[in-house]
Amino acid sequence: MKLIFSKQDLLKSVGISLKAVPSKTTMPILGCILIDASSNVIKFTSNDMELGIETTVDGTILEKGIVALDARIFSDIVRKLPENDVTITTDENLNTTITCEKAKFNIPGKSGEDFAYLPIIERNEGITISQFTLKEVIRQTIFSIAANENNKLMTGELFEIRDNVLKVVSLDGHRIAIRKIELKENYADRKVVVPGKTLNEISKILSGEVDDQVNIFFTENHIVFEFDQTVVVSRLIEGEFFRIDQMLSSDYETKVEINKKELLDCIDRATLLVKEGDKKPIIISVEDGSMELRIDSQIGSMKEDIDIEKEGKDILIGFNPKFLIDALKVIDDERITIYLVNPKAPCFIKNDEESYIYLILPVNFNAVR
Amino acid sequence: MKLIFSKQDLLKSVGISLKAVPSKTTMPILGCILIDASSNVIKFTSNDMELGIETTVDGTILEKGIVALDARIFSDIVRKLPENDVTITTDENLNTTITCEKAKFNIPGKSGEDFAYLPIIERNEGITISQFTLKEVIRQTIFSIAANENNKLMTGELFEIRDNVLKVVSLDGHRIAIRKIELKENYADRKVVVPGKTLNEISKILSGEVDDQVNIFFTENHIVFEFDQTVVVSRLIEGEFFRIDQMLSSDYETKVEINKKELLDCIDRATLLVKEGDKKPIIISVEDGSMELRIDSQIGSMKEDIDIEKEGKDILIGFNPKFLIDALKVIDDERITIYLVNPKAPCFIKNDEESYIYLILPVNFNAVR
Repeated sequence: MKLIFSKQDLLKSVGISLKAVPSKTTMPILGCILIDASSNVIKFTSNDMELGIETTVDGTILEKGIVALDARIFSDIVRKLPENDVTITTDENLNTTITCEKAKFNIPGKSGEDFAYLPIIERNEGITISQFTLKEVIRQTIFSIAANENNKLMTGELFEIRDNVLKVVSLDGHRIAIRKIELKENYADRKVVVPGKTLNEISKILSGEVDDQVNIFFTENHIVFEFDQTVVVSRLIEGEFFRIDQMLSSDYETKVEINKKELLDCIDRATLLVKEGDKKPIIISVEDGSMELRIDSQIGSMKEDIDIEKEGKDILIGFNPKFLIDALKVIDDERITIYLVNPKAPCFIKNDEESYIYLILPVNFNAVR
Repeated sequence: MKLIFSKQDLLKSVGISLKAVPSKTTMPILGCILIDASSNVIKFTSNDMELGIETTVDGTILEKGIVALDARIFSDIVRKLPENDVTITTDENLNTTITCEKAKFNIPGKSGEDFAYLPIIERNEGITISQFTLKEVIRQTIFSIAANENNKLMTGELFEIRDNVLKVVSLDGHRIAIRKIELKENYADRKVVVPGKTLNEISKILSGEVDDQVNIFFTENHIVFEFDQTVVVSRLIEGEFFRIDQMLSSDYETKVEINKKELLDCIDRATLLVKEGDKKPIIISVEDGSMELRIDSQIGSMKEDIDIEKEGKDILIGFNPKFLIDALKVIDDERITIYLVNPKAPCFIKNDEESYIYLILPVNFNAVR
């Protein structure tokens, strides 16, 4: 095999492939990128058995061939090469030489025979959205998936298509994040749970451009993302996602309109008095025209007032500050609206169109002032 | 006590003070910054018993007083405050309130009575150099002090003044770094060993400007740096520094002139084949017009040629690549000269004026090619 690439093209493709290389594995072949130049195009494939990526690489084939290279070493070498053409050749023993200007690396290659190729997926039902939208939707929901695997379904996100709306939902038992996207065309109803890890990795390789598209296909067990020169195939999480409709009520007793940045900065300041692992709530007191936030900890105390517009009753309620910060960070609106019922019921942060809804459960606190 | 600062002034001074706050201490008072507004100026003092910093802070004294505040908490609070005036007040119990706009923090303060004030130092013998020069000299030598404390003297740097030259020397048993600075005035001869930690911290607070000066004073047991509104006092390391003159020979068998960046990039590439803790040498073969570098490891091998200008014999010699990288990184010259004697003798990288000299011991290797 003998291939020539520009360093930049190679670097980009290796970067994409790395996203499906497991950081640790007992199977060395899974730690490899498969370079397949057996036909007239060059494809890099990586696969951790849950997530697989295949990307087409710009380059010249002087001699066809296939080799699997250790992904980390290959990536390290490419990254450090001069900015010039890179030649990759293999001999009959799969010894691989990577040459760029006067630098010449030799590393052992592996046969492609043991490599886990991507499953072949029939693509019939699919939706098309912009890469920007998909990247945003992931960013605005991924933080509220569960960190541990106790409940597998909570480590994924619901992707639900109904009535030409794509609804993405994540939840971890203390909060729910919902984003809705209107689709331009008519699609069949679908409901799948996509692993959070897949979404995290894919959002790193999406361009984020409004003009770039991504096609999403669904099968029984897989979801496929097609964009640019790349195909990402991921297993789905099996099982029925949580029914959340009964938790979403539009009744409220208190409605607060507030400047998002002021609220976020204030909670951010308050949390510096909370050591990690310490579960100190931030206590919010809503009155006419003003919201008081305070926090008390072993380190000290903090108090701050923020101007608000209020409808309805006064309320005193406590929250885990991290959950408020996570939601506020991903909302792009300058002013936000918070809906409250009582100190034991969840609060909702949502816009009028409900294109985003963040539900956060309150925490108990000692109401001594 | 009641003081008003601009947030920026406060942030800068807290940042400077933090450099002498130990990251861990069994004496809580050492983890504090002392705010002393008992006279007409406001001074922040911090002291880890080896290194002490006193800095004068711009601010308004509405009510005189002294309080010691936990440095990390104080710093965290200041950093997160809005960009506006900050008021610090203490009550009779040293409870301290930090207010900025509508944010109000309460933290406990400590009495200044237990605080370890800086030693009072007589300042008679001193030298003056630019902050730029001191910062550069530290950067260009500090990497070759010893990391562990087995030999205390190796954890410091020799500052030697003789014949109007300041010579700074660091060594760790495998290499020596020497920088010489011509002083503008006549100073008495001096020879002290300054802790590396002191130099590391001070280089972080030096402005690095050519036009800003720093005055350096020496006493029996201390070195004092005075610059801007700050005084840094450090203990010296006791003992006689190593005699290095006999190691510095101007004889050589091979002289190589080479582009520094090409050499550095090449060694940098080569080291990606070396896992941390693995002691693989880089093997350098010097011939007429060309230097070949190669490295062999379990991961693979790498070979690269670099154009050079050579005088004298051919030579094959091995080095710990890290030692070469460390020295090359801090040399600002585009082309450098390397002097070699034989595969068992140290190499020298130095300029004609010998304003810098880097001595590096070679390592043994299997000369099988």
